[in-house]
Amino acid sequence: MVKAWLVAFLRDEVQRRRKMDRVVLGLSGGVDSAVVAYLAAEAFGPENVLCLRLPYRLSSKQSLDHARLVVEALGVQEQTLEITSMVEGYLGACAAPVDPVRIGNICARCRMIAIFDHSMAIRGLPLGTGNKTERLLGYFTWHADDAPPINPLGDLYKTQVWQLAQELGVPSEIIEKPPTADLIEGQTDEGDFGISYERADRILEGILRGFSSDQLAGFGFTSGEIALVRKRLDSTHWKRRLPTVAMMSTTSIGEYYLRPVDY
Amino acid sequence: MVKAWLVAFLRDEVQRRRKMDRVVLGLSGGVDSAVVAYLAAEAFGPENVLCLRLPYRLSSKQSLDHARLVVEALGVQEQTLEITSMVEGYLGACAAPVDPVRIGNICARCRMIAIFDHSMAIRGLPLGTGNKTERLLGYFTWHADDAPPINPLGDLYKTQVWQLAQELGVPSEIIEKPPTADLIEGQTDEGDFGISYERADRILEGILRGFSSDQLAGFGFTSGEIALVRKRLDSTHWKRRLPTVAMMSTTSIGEYYLRPVDY
Repeated sequence: MVKAWLVAFLRDEVQRRRKMDRVVLGLSGGVDSAVVAYLAAEAFGPENVLCLRLPYRLSSKQSLDHARLVVEALGVQEQTLEITSMVEGYLGACAAPVDPVRIGNICARCRMIAIFDHSMAIRGLPLGTGNKTERLLGYFTWHADDAPPINPLGDLYKTQVWQLAQELGVPSEIIEKPPTADLIEGQTDEGDFGISYERADRILEGILRGFSSDQLAGFGFTSGEIALVRKRLDSTHWKRRLPTVAMMSTTSIGEYYLRPVDY
Repeated sequence: MVKAWLVAFLRDEVQRRRKMDRVVLGLSGGVDSAVVAYLAAEAFGPENVLCLRLPYRLSSKQSLDHARLVVEALGVQEQTLEITSMVEGYLGACAAPVDPVRIGNICARCRMIAIFDHSMAIRGLPLGTGNKTERLLGYFTWHADDAPPINPLGDLYKTQVWQLAQELGVPSEIIEKPPTADLIEGQTDEGDFGISYERADRILEGILRGFSSDQLAGFGFTSGEIALVRKRLDSTHWKRRLPTVAMMSTTSIGEYYLRPVDY
């Protein structure tokens, strides 16, 4: 049911609205991009899906292997492009050393560049792979993971992506491993958050539905867990919006509230 | 008047709302980024404004010189960082040659990476420099020129930016030269468009105010000019919006129209 709707969504957005046939995505070896590859292969045929593996020198060998499993299972197009020399080219031009958090953001944005550039090469569209949990927690690089024009997973929590992955037949080693941004060995998303996806998803949905912290506590969550999720949500609204532009006229793009233009 | 409002806008967005004191921008040598540098120096003091010169190997020497004029006139912080090795690092990793249009987009996005990365280094905010004309014509690289969280110029047409530049005392050689993306020698914006900024701005404002093509023709514009501007405007709506996410629930981020969440 979810699969059928998302396949229809992809066809509608790519083929009917944008008159294109091909798509590109970055295949990290994680479950989100694997699910998008399965959906895209179903929607457009594997010959019209280009999966890019975009390792940096610190990326794990296991990630690359898991991405290959997906490519082989689906028969999609694949290219592997090391972003290391691009990233190091930037780092070498900087006046001062760059810390690992900044390097993580640089890698994510270099991958965006590669995906968008290859979309022009094949006259296709980039597909996004960010899920609702990471979007709400702001656990992504702005203008990177969130950049592609079409994203089939953005309204599914991570726990829902796992369910869908099972339904689609994504290899179990990809579904069962702990999610990681694959920047530092041993790092996991849930370790970064300080809470499991299973509990974070339920708290997020509760907040979005308007439950107070007291009500959420009544469902069995600790005040620490609730505060942690609420803080990430509240401090990252800007990552889910367009930039702020100074309004100077009544024809301000998208901003003039009495008579919106260009919507 | 415009200057006072934009300086107040910058202080309000950066200091009051986001509790920051410093800003970063890419100084191309063109008039838009020069104007933003003048406004930022006034709003935050020159010591809190970092201007990055980000030349690629094909960038003109004149652009670098014009950027230096601004730095010297204002006394702002400056760093020059060649993006050439970053761009070439990517191109070298590609399986096939990349054409000049794609290289232009890659350069624009590499500059975005440098500006955002340096904003983290100095704990400041990136400022955007895109004007209303190029935003409406879609004459910019998505997730590059339009990426910074705050843009003081986005509701001013190019012809208005020129007026403001004069009022601010931007050096005349910067105001008077033909605008160019500085990717190919001799290339100019107006050559790319096939119409002057002066005429395009008036047609754009006419369209946004709801005038028909016939009415615009009555103001002295040719049907070719009107069609040209309308086509660029109509074919680039997607560049002025957030990506499309498949809506799967009533808590869809920003999308569920009956009860918007996270706005």
